Amino acid sequence: MDKCNVALYGCGTVGTGVAQVLLSRGALGERIGDRVKLKYVVDARLDEVRRALQQSGPVIVTDDLDQPLADPEVNVVVELFGGMTAARTVVERALASGRDVITANKALLASYGDELFRLARAHGRAIGFEGSVGGGIPVIGAIRDGLVANRIERIYGIVNGTCNYVLTRMLERDMLYARALAEAQERGYAEADPRLDVEGLDSAHKLAVLARLAFGVNVKLEHIACEGIAHVELSDLRYAQALGYTLKLLAIGIRRGERLELRVHPSLLRKEHPVAGIGGVFNAVCIHTSHAGEVVLTGQGAGRMPTTSAVLSDIAAMALGTYPTDFAALSQFGDVPDADVVPVGDIQTRYYFRLDCADRPGVLAKVAAILGEEDISIASLRQQEPAGPGKHVVPVVFMTHHAREASFRRALDRINQLDVVRGDRTRFLRVEDI
Amino acid sequence: MDKCNVALYGCGTVGTGVAQVLLSRGALGERIGDRVKLKYVVDARLDEVRRALQQSGPVIVTDDLDQPLADPEVNVVVELFGGMTAARTVVERALASGRDVITANKALLASYGDELFRLARAHGRAIGFEGSVGGGIPVIGAIRDGLVANRIERIYGIVNGTCNYVLTRMLERDMLYARALAEAQERGYAEADPRLDVEGLDSAHKLAVLARLAFGVNVKLEHIACEGIAHVELSDLRYAQALGYTLKLLAIGIRRGERLELRVHPSLLRKEHPVAGIGGVFNAVCIHTSHAGEVVLTGQGAGRMPTTSAVLSDIAAMALGTYPTDFAALSQFGDVPDADVVPVGDIQTRYYFRLDCADRPGVLAKVAAILGEEDISIASLRQQEPAGPGKHVVPVVFMTHHAREASFRRALDRINQLDVVRGDRTRFLRVEDI
Repeated sequence: MDKCNVALYGCGTVGTGVAQVLLSRGALGERIGDRVKLKYVVDARLDEVRRALQQSGPVIVTDDLDQPLADPEVNVVVELFGGMTAARTVVERALASGRDVITANKALLASYGDELFRLARAHGRAIGFEGSVGGGIPVIGAIRDGLVANRIERIYGIVNGTCNYVLTRMLERDMLYARALAEAQERGYAEADPRLDVEGLDSAHKLAVLARLAFGVNVKLEHIACEGIAHVELSDLRYAQALGYTLKLLAIGIRRGERLELRVHPSLLRKEHPVAGIGGVFNAVCIHTSHAGEVVLTGQGAGRMPTTSAVLSDIAAMALGTYPTDFAALSQFGDVPDADVVPVGDIQTRYYFRLDCADRPGVLAKVAAILGEEDISIASLRQQEPAGPGKHVVPVVFMTHHAREASFRRALDRINQLDVVRGDRTRFLRVEDI
Repeated sequence: MDKCNVALYGCGTVGTGVAQVLLSRGALGERIGDRVKLKYVVDARLDEVRRALQQSGPVIVTDDLDQPLADPEVNVVVELFGGMTAARTVVERALASGRDVITANKALLASYGDELFRLARAHGRAIGFEGSVGGGIPVIGAIRDGLVANRIERIYGIVNGTCNYVLTRMLERDMLYARALAEAQERGYAEADPRLDVEGLDSAHKLAVLARLAFGVNVKLEHIACEGIAHVELSDLRYAQALGYTLKLLAIGIRRGERLELRVHPSLLRKEHPVAGIGGVFNAVCIHTSHAGEVVLTGQGAGRMPTTSAVLSDIAAMALGTYPTDFAALSQFGDVPDADVVPVGDIQTRYYFRLDCADRPGVLAKVAAILGEEDISIASLRQQEPAGPGKHVVPVVFMTHHAREASFRRALDRINQLDVVRGDRTRFLRVEDI
């Protein structure tokens, strides 16, 4: 396109960053010239937005969703509303009226990506979404272009900075989960309603986006097994640490023959693993490929300017015309089959679990017998000191070898029914040797 | 372009990988369809190449450099000869006759990149070079496209797997440099003539390539201060380790106002640094950016298939037409100014140095006086145990705060002239707090 005239919908945290960079002439202008013009900013908070942009230039700030779409000069729509209904409406209208679309909305893509991609292709348009995963890390482009010749065997990583911050602080500062989360909220790393993050759903959204790109399949959200970090106990982090492991909330996609494992859950990683050392709000994505081997990308996974950087890279690629070419040509953006997902019970991984046992002879024999009957072998076992003098409950920490999830859960149910096991339920964590 | 007909020059390690993938229908074909056809392989070892490719398809194996260029169907030339003269000739002829070029030849680009880019632009053609730095890590694309909107403040990392392997093994196995190098050669990680790697020149070539892309300047090789690892002593690795540091051969580009520091040398990094844990033949590149923050990319920096992955990503982007658009539009590929490089003497960094001192009172006072006069302050100091009973030479390890290189070297010269300092010369290493 000769000139890329942008209408920006949503001038919140990221939108303000995008608008400010487009209204200044920074590195983007130096590299690609004057190809991009921000023509409209659409936001209900008109005065606030005008103040934030210290408007002097020719940008039109409006609260009318239709006004930019009625302007034939507008050829790129950037959707940064977030949420679902309004975002979806804007994206659909933009595509149907012949505009390319850029969005950082992983929730929208995870739920409606397939139909939006179809709509885009039907109108000869493109949807860019570098900002939807990994903030400033150019992970979408790396998979799409840089690793285009590779079959991707596995893709996994830390894609939610809030959870990573909470888990990091728990270990660093001996904080309980609730305190670490409260601190994250105070520092602006977690939303007032943190459920989307801590329950793992945000990570699942991102996994759905990554899996389509990496494996060429359409992922339905309900096929991603999803567990958050709200039940993680500090004591388990400590026991695991003593065994040489760190806990991370991982989003994991793995090929198993023709099928895929897709899951989000707290995962123990050996502390030598490249992702184990990624702390705080940082993100990291590991991509195991057929030719390039393992590629790991790390960086700031969220925040105004990192996500702005990602959105601007999409804008540049739209302005140059390279992204629409990619989008029209690459098979992942076309008709793809639905993912054939391994049921949760058939997942094979290792497990950590902790039993609070009566301090009596014969307890371990009973537990070991059940594990043996369910075909689960023990990799290591540590009986911890009792919690205090006079206490008769002894925590025992087990690590298993690889086992089927269904077998493991059955064993755990049986173990919980033993009268020597105390507490309401036994804590377990999956251990990833990837 | 409708069909991308490739002539591949050089069927050695990487060339064979590229040819084999193009002759099979793998992930690349699934993603971009039948856009690419390998039409010619040019190599002097005709029989060997035919055997390696188990030729059944329509590819023409020839030792005639001109034959593919005489074929009007050929529109992409992949130069994998390596070396200088023949490679340069092929690239120039290909461009002049209207072909796009792909090369993994960092030596060629570091020496003639600027004129080859000019030649390409003059003929409306493009030069792709993802394979020239970082093997399978898509670092060129990440800077070019993913981080296009960022001013890059610093780019540095481990870009030579041979040196990283040698340094890793020295520490892991208490090996002297010569033994670690011999082992690397036995395992095929180092060339029979390893000088290009261990003297830092290969890293300097890659830094020249990265710096053009990151900073938009033309870098002349002679402006990169370059030191290799051949003089690294195991004892210094050990002393530095005890202080919490690891040694890496880093290629470093840093903006200092309007100027650039460009240097390659062994560098001590705190062991918490994301690059410090990258061992063996792996590479890592850190990019500090204005908006995206710090992005770190790691992976296999060399080898047949990782580099093949990179070359194929260029081929795909040529076949789709996206790369030629990028190359024609982005300012880094056009007329750029020569880098304005900070002279070595004006570099500011921290220093580690070890003095072998006579075990006599007053030694440290003399050394400290010289450092003070040269405006260098000591951050830490450790007097080690003498090397054995009855020895009167005591190693003393210093870490300085930031200092000008010229001042530091002057101080070191003066210290070496003290009669209490033993040994022919004082070892020093730069310490990077980046």
